[in-house]
Amino acid sequence: MITSPDNQQLKTIRKLADKRHRARSGLFVAEGEDLVAAAEAAGIEPDVLLVAGVDVEPALLSAVSMLGSGTRVMGIYRQRWSAPGGRLSVYLEGVGDPGNVGTIIRSAHALADGPVTLGPGCADPYSPKAVRASMGSVFHRPPARAAFGELRGTTVALDARRGPPLSEVPVTGPEVVCLGAEREGLSEAALRDASAVAHIPLREGGPDSLNVAMAAAVALYERARMAADA
Amino acid sequence: MITSPDNQQLKTIRKLADKRHRARSGLFVAEGEDLVAAAEAAGIEPDVLLVAGVDVEPALLSAVSMLGSGTRVMGIYRQRWSAPGGRLSVYLEGVGDPGNVGTIIRSAHALADGPVTLGPGCADPYSPKAVRASMGSVFHRPPARAAFGELRGTTVALDARRGPPLSEVPVTGPEVVCLGAEREGLSEAALRDASAVAHIPLREGGPDSLNVAMAAAVALYERARMAADA
Repeated sequence: MITSPDNQQLKTIRKLADKRHRARSGLFVAEGEDLVAAAEAAGIEPDVLLVAGVDVEPALLSAVSMLGSGTRVMGIYRQRWSAPGGRLSVYLEGVGDPGNVGTIIRSAHALADGPVTLGPGCADPYSPKAVRASMGSVFHRPPARAAFGELRGTTVALDARRGPPLSEVPVTGPEVVCLGAEREGLSEAALRDASAVAHIPLREGGPDSLNVAMAAAVALYERARMAADA
Repeated sequence: MITSPDNQQLKTIRKLADKRHRARSGLFVAEGEDLVAAAEAAGIEPDVLLVAGVDVEPALLSAVSMLGSGTRVMGIYRQRWSAPGGRLSVYLEGVGDPGNVGTIIRSAHALADGPVTLGPGCADPYSPKAVRASMGSVFHRPPARAAFGELRGTTVALDARRGPPLSEVPVTGPEVVCLGAEREGLSEAALRDASAVAHIPLREGGPDSLNVAMAAAVALYERARMAADA
């Protein structure tokens, strides 16, 4: 039983709050019984598993929690990365909010067969907030990292206004739905080089755009529905 | 210029962090230039508007911020409530996360013409997190409060598994898409009394459900698309 805050495993967990340390070590932390169970269901073994009251004093575990008190279990895992691909997947540029990145990983796991591919400027999918928002999907469907130019298949760039409604662009084969940051949108290079540019129709007088995670869910739903109907 | 933390307006802002005080007073706080601009665009006047360096010492304004430091402007506004209605709207039960409630208010403003109607167990749409997540849509499209039995028109209850795919339920007139909490789903009473029960098709082997805000966005998109095609 760990009884000292100077324990090496607790020190590692504290360090993994830092994105640079996650990048250097290739490790990340999953907090809570649901996430640890999701890892197990995906057949992923932790490098370290700490259960409050069994492996570590509960107060010491709570003290290194990044998501709030009362954490009963924490695991240290190795980061895994997919290659881009699949019949349907998502590419993100400049999506800096880890909650959005994690939620999109969950939505893609539910609605598509390919990974979420992270382009420049995206939040770390292995940050505590992103892992939690993914609800464990990050274990089942690890994200990919690539530049827009490395994507294969049809690239459908979502823009707030440009192009036809998404439902009017036929699904012709494997495709990647591409989304940019909420205000800036996709880079001009992505919009220029994409196979198609399309928008999600919104009502007049409403917001200019949906939250990027909502737009991703709607787009994946629509493309999966169209592919099933085709 | 306010120079004391004991100022009455700052005290009011501090008290409005408490849900009970918001309920009693019928007031709420919007933080930040974007939200205050959204209120103005909606023609809503604040009861009090505090601009850092003009009306109040910047450090005192930051000290009462509920969303983090660096807030340059805060307004106190009166809560407004709609009646349920519209050709397309949303009803929520047990959605306790204020970020989800606010995001759904934004999505409904973008995709539907009716308000978000809050049933039992929902987060306060006028909490700081909900107001921020709404990105100002709460000013343009105030939420409603009602029990399931008070809804008018066709009620389409979303369930994780039951009923046909949502796209197979015809749109026949004004309707309310009904969603429950992420794990519990809608109450048995709502599922029993709804005009139709439907689900959003998800892939085999993926998550059991979408995040409730994703499900709401997908459902509103689908019903708006179907209504436009009808």
